[in-house]
Amino acid sequence: MHFADRLQHAIDKTDSRIVIGIDPDPMRIFAPGSKLQQSFSGKSKEHLLETFCVMVIDVAKQYACAVKPQAAFFESMGITGLTVLSRIIKYARNLGIPVILDAKRGDIGNTGRAYAAAYLHPKSDFFVDALTINPFLGPDTLEPFVEMANENDCGLFVLVKTSNPGSSAFQDLKVTEEDCTSVQTVFEKVAASVAAIGNLNLGNCNFSNVGAVVGATYPENLTRLRQLMPRTIFLLPGYGAQGGTAEDVKPAFLKDGRGALVSSSRQIIFAYEQLDDLRPAPEEIYQAIADAARKTRDDVNCAIASI
Amino acid sequence: MHFADRLQHAIDKTDSRIVIGIDPDPMRIFAPGSKLQQSFSGKSKEHLLETFCVMVIDVAKQYACAVKPQAAFFESMGITGLTVLSRIIKYARNLGIPVILDAKRGDIGNTGRAYAAAYLHPKSDFFVDALTINPFLGPDTLEPFVEMANENDCGLFVLVKTSNPGSSAFQDLKVTEEDCTSVQTVFEKVAASVAAIGNLNLGNCNFSNVGAVVGATYPENLTRLRQLMPRTIFLLPGYGAQGGTAEDVKPAFLKDGRGALVSSSRQIIFAYEQLDDLRPAPEEIYQAIADAARKTRDDVNCAIASI
Repeated sequence: MHFADRLQHAIDKTDSRIVIGIDPDPMRIFAPGSKLQQSFSGKSKEHLLETFCVMVIDVAKQYACAVKPQAAFFESMGITGLTVLSRIIKYARNLGIPVILDAKRGDIGNTGRAYAAAYLHPKSDFFVDALTINPFLGPDTLEPFVEMANENDCGLFVLVKTSNPGSSAFQDLKVTEEDCTSVQTVFEKVAASVAAIGNLNLGNCNFSNVGAVVGATYPENLTRLRQLMPRTIFLLPGYGAQGGTAEDVKPAFLKDGRGALVSSSRQIIFAYEQLDDLRPAPEEIYQAIADAARKTRDDVNCAIASI
Repeated sequence: MHFADRLQHAIDKTDSRIVIGIDPDPMRIFAPGSKLQQSFSGKSKEHLLETFCVMVIDVAKQYACAVKPQAAFFESMGITGLTVLSRIIKYARNLGIPVILDAKRGDIGNTGRAYAAAYLHPKSDFFVDALTINPFLGPDTLEPFVEMANENDCGLFVLVKTSNPGSSAFQDLKVTEEDCTSVQTVFEKVAASVAAIGNLNLGNCNFSNVGAVVGATYPENLTRLRQLMPRTIFLLPGYGAQGGTAEDVKPAFLKDGRGALVSSSRQIIFAYEQLDDLRPAPEEIYQAIADAARKTRDDVNCAIASI
């Protein structure tokens, strides 16, 4: 099934437009006295990492339309971390949860093809439903990813406008034609490119398998980007811990409440850190994560109901 | 020792300004009837991959100032590929060869820090001398990499102008101030940012540990970029198979022949494919790679002698 249709199916099933980011920051989960470690004392780091990710995925099954593991944290734990990443990707996919790997890859020619094969080929250890990619090297470098995604019913999310404070430095630069008449930002140029590539492969739901990453922290850009990319699914990071609110993300959605995914990670997955108990039971940890996920889902649904 | 000094030491020792790219494209090394497979018949893919990389590193010891493994190809071979990557990084570093991992990473906040920890922290499975990074997300996202590099005497190479045909689409966009007077390209803006960050940490050789990736395929930009980044080491991909020549790269070097590294990969590491023998002996394969590396080194030295 086309990636966008698969995603829409998951949204309908869970009544959720949220994507839970799996960001197992070792500085937090393995911090001395961490409640997670206290709760699962005696377990190896590898086991603790996997247990934590599995718990987040189990929560996502009920309250999220997808999970988004962040490659960086797994890479920072070396071969052990990557082995766990491979296993939890399979665990989530076996449960029917779409997996968007946040790896922000990008490279030229046959190197780009190798990255595509690493994440979008069914035989790979890291085969996922969708991958985030970085467009800086140029539209030609997106092609191998698009080809591999099309072949295997996968999706892509291209960075268009990121959620960090410094994203304006290069992405917001104003590009002027020689006659100084039309002005566009770099991110609008990228958006136009993403829309053009994406329009070639629409699902039955009429959305493309090539999505865009657009920071929830810059609501003023969302309306313009929605105009430039009408058939593009927006993945909106920056919600929650980074300051984006349910009101902020409204302009990313179409009037029918479709077309965007709200990504939240720290505010959900580390919700158990707020528990009073210094050594919470595993069920309490699970419940804290589930409560935070449900609340995020409901907040977003509530905001969308008023579009 | 400061990364730039370590690199200069390697350049002096080998009389070489070339970096050999380790790009073990599985489509080539495992292709049916590949001369490498014929030569090492009966070996597992993992063993063949490692044997090939070790051979390239042994060649590099004599003819190159560094090696540059391309992460994508190892990732495309999953956990097996990454395990070999970890081993060959250690192999090269034990021989005293600087390793520049070409991974083009980039992400925000604590995610960027996790990528930095994955490659620039001595305890990591993938600890290298230097890492390539992508600046699209903004200068704030370079900071965690710079901090970790400074702490551990590592280097960085920031993408400024890449070697692919489509790199102009976003990197060459012309940015105009509101009064339409000054005009700069996006890549010049990135270059200015790289120079500013890099000037904070110069080695005894007076070069920074923050370098720049500048495609050898765009010689017309090299002079301008050298002006903008006087203390920056340029890593020049695109030499050889992509069309860059020894003459093309001259403007990247200072008058004393310092300040740039010429990266060549396919033209060197796959040189054995040109052998007449369908099943060459391992020594013949080694010799073909060594001959190609020596020729590249000498061509570059020759061009530099005439600066």
